[in-house]
Amino acid sequence: MITVNVSLGDRSYPIYIGEQLLQNDSLIAGLVPGSQVAIVTNETVGPLYAGPLVERLGNKQVDVLELPDGEAYKTLSTYERVLDFLAGNKHHRSTTVIALGGGVIGDMAGFAAATYQRGVNFVQIPTTLLAQVDSSVGGKTAVNHASGKNMIGAFYQPTAVVADVGVLATLPERELRAGLAEVLKYGVIEDAVFFDEVVAGAQKLLQRDSHLLSRAVQRSCELKAQVVAEDERETGRRAILNFGHTFGHAIENLLGYGELLHGEAVAIGMVMAADLSVRQGWLAPEQGRRIKAAVEALELPVARPASVAAADMVGAFQMDKKVLDGTVRFVLARDIGEVFVTDAVAPEHLNATLKTDNLLDADG
Amino acid sequence: MITVNVSLGDRSYPIYIGEQLLQNDSLIAGLVPGSQVAIVTNETVGPLYAGPLVERLGNKQVDVLELPDGEAYKTLSTYERVLDFLAGNKHHRSTTVIALGGGVIGDMAGFAAATYQRGVNFVQIPTTLLAQVDSSVGGKTAVNHASGKNMIGAFYQPTAVVADVGVLATLPERELRAGLAEVLKYGVIEDAVFFDEVVAGAQKLLQRDSHLLSRAVQRSCELKAQVVAEDERETGRRAILNFGHTFGHAIENLLGYGELLHGEAVAIGMVMAADLSVRQGWLAPEQGRRIKAAVEALELPVARPASVAAADMVGAFQMDKKVLDGTVRFVLARDIGEVFVTDAVAPEHLNATLKTDNLLDADG
Repeated sequence: MITVNVSLGDRSYPIYIGEQLLQNDSLIAGLVPGSQVAIVTNETVGPLYAGPLVERLGNKQVDVLELPDGEAYKTLSTYERVLDFLAGNKHHRSTTVIALGGGVIGDMAGFAAATYQRGVNFVQIPTTLLAQVDSSVGGKTAVNHASGKNMIGAFYQPTAVVADVGVLATLPERELRAGLAEVLKYGVIEDAVFFDEVVAGAQKLLQRDSHLLSRAVQRSCELKAQVVAEDERETGRRAILNFGHTFGHAIENLLGYGELLHGEAVAIGMVMAADLSVRQGWLAPEQGRRIKAAVEALELPVARPASVAAADMVGAFQMDKKVLDGTVRFVLARDIGEVFVTDAVAPEHLNATLKTDNLLDADG
Repeated sequence: MITVNVSLGDRSYPIYIGEQLLQNDSLIAGLVPGSQVAIVTNETVGPLYAGPLVERLGNKQVDVLELPDGEAYKTLSTYERVLDFLAGNKHHRSTTVIALGGGVIGDMAGFAAATYQRGVNFVQIPTTLLAQVDSSVGGKTAVNHASGKNMIGAFYQPTAVVADVGVLATLPERELRAGLAEVLKYGVIEDAVFFDEVVAGAQKLLQRDSHLLSRAVQRSCELKAQVVAEDERETGRRAILNFGHTFGHAIENLLGYGELLHGEAVAIGMVMAADLSVRQGWLAPEQGRRIKAAVEALELPVARPASVAAADMVGAFQMDKKVLDGTVRFVLARDIGEVFVTDAVAPEHLNATLKTDNLLDADG
């Protein structure tokens, strides 16, 4: 078992990474300090993995809530269902909420834990690769709103995260690839060596090699933890984690959530961000093409879906949370391993990136 | 103008106390750093006081939301209305939410500010005495839930509070008295000299003497700020602020919110807590009677309403947020100016306090 520590003063916490962690008696028992625990999961993950947890927490009041599966349910109304469940089962302020599932469950159960009685213990057991490398670190909790993704939420740190790469065995292929998009992102923004590692290991990662997956989760969490430790509430540097997300969120927003997986939208967004970086003259075209080739090596999409009109993207940017007083900010690349936040983008370059059918094409 | 500073590290903020503050151009303009502001108020306060604010913020995007007035509207559904309003008017992460109203508006607008885009600038302009001395300090935001009062919320500090005692001129008599209940509470829990000041000034306070009111708001905020600075998230000492609240919340819960004002319920709760303290042998009977006499001097109720059955109170305690793993804790008094948290209450004493028709009566 590998432990990555997220350093946030009195809100610091460990991420445990490895195989068979859900079967580890002392690890699981140690997650719940009080006498009550609520496991919030979904109808897909619950039947597979709630059992081993309940077994190991048998001496506590354990209540399991299975929510419907999917981003479409990441709403205030499902959030309210979690709160009703906690109150209905008379959970006290000393209870622990365990999120067992992907990012949707983590975000929603986390927001409920952050706000039930103004905050109770919260433990994350992410069961998708995306959640293991993304939602595990940073304390972002949220639900979606008609006006945009993650518009309502809180910064709230878990007391521990358990990333068992064994559970990735049952993850659908498409979700595995979507998770690898975020893994690749950490390489692009902060660590060129790790970028190369991911590209070199692409085939093994797609085949779920557990050693490489553990390593990918570990390095992703370490890189994200560094950024978050410097800027917990995203007032500055933390925004670099949104590389690919300004484009990605806009695509998700316009398609309707659930059409593309988040990681797939981010994959496209990264290629668009790389394309825009090249057009701005900030990134060497060769490096841009390496980013696109890496996304392709992970068998992820590299182009805006035909059903999303370029002209609509600009309006969708406006409701992105990174918009400050009406100015759209982008995270762009200077090199693989080095990105920065900017609002100084030439409209003609942005338009070209939005309109081209062949991002980073030598002739585009 | 008096300024009380609430010291909470990088979440510190000033409380401005005085008369005619809403007419102070530079003070009001200085509250809004960005280009957008949403004033959340209610249909009673809005028509009286939103105008002067809007006037002084005229160079910004100012949106005013008037909610229905009353605790009955402090719900997730009204909270959602505030979020819809912010998103509908395209407020960005750099916006400022101003809560203009009493505790209900402050709690609800505060929870919306805490969670809209995971937190935006928040300014409180409390227009009731209760809100000026209570909600101004501590960063508690919340809405009610079917299972209990303030069950859903967040700790979220404002960037500034403006307590204009001039606006108390239009406060209904009954609300003024309810506010004085909390003022008196600060004396009981922390400052015997201030307790005497309040008792001696009771008639003048009831006549809205603005000098005495400013002083009462100042000292209450100072005392509360000390406690909160030591324990921002209520893991220990801060619980003493709930003197009178375990009983008070139970009464409010059983009566249905809105029957009694919160301060009135707390007034009764303080007398019950004093009675229980005396029965436990912790407080001298004479001191208990002084607390009851002080509540009477402020023309506040001193007995459980006849429609609340003693037997139902115990069940209502169970859902109080101060319940830790099923144990009901009380804040009881050792002296005027000295209280403590305990769960070591003899059931027969608690029953006697709940059942008596004459709290702190020499023969009770």
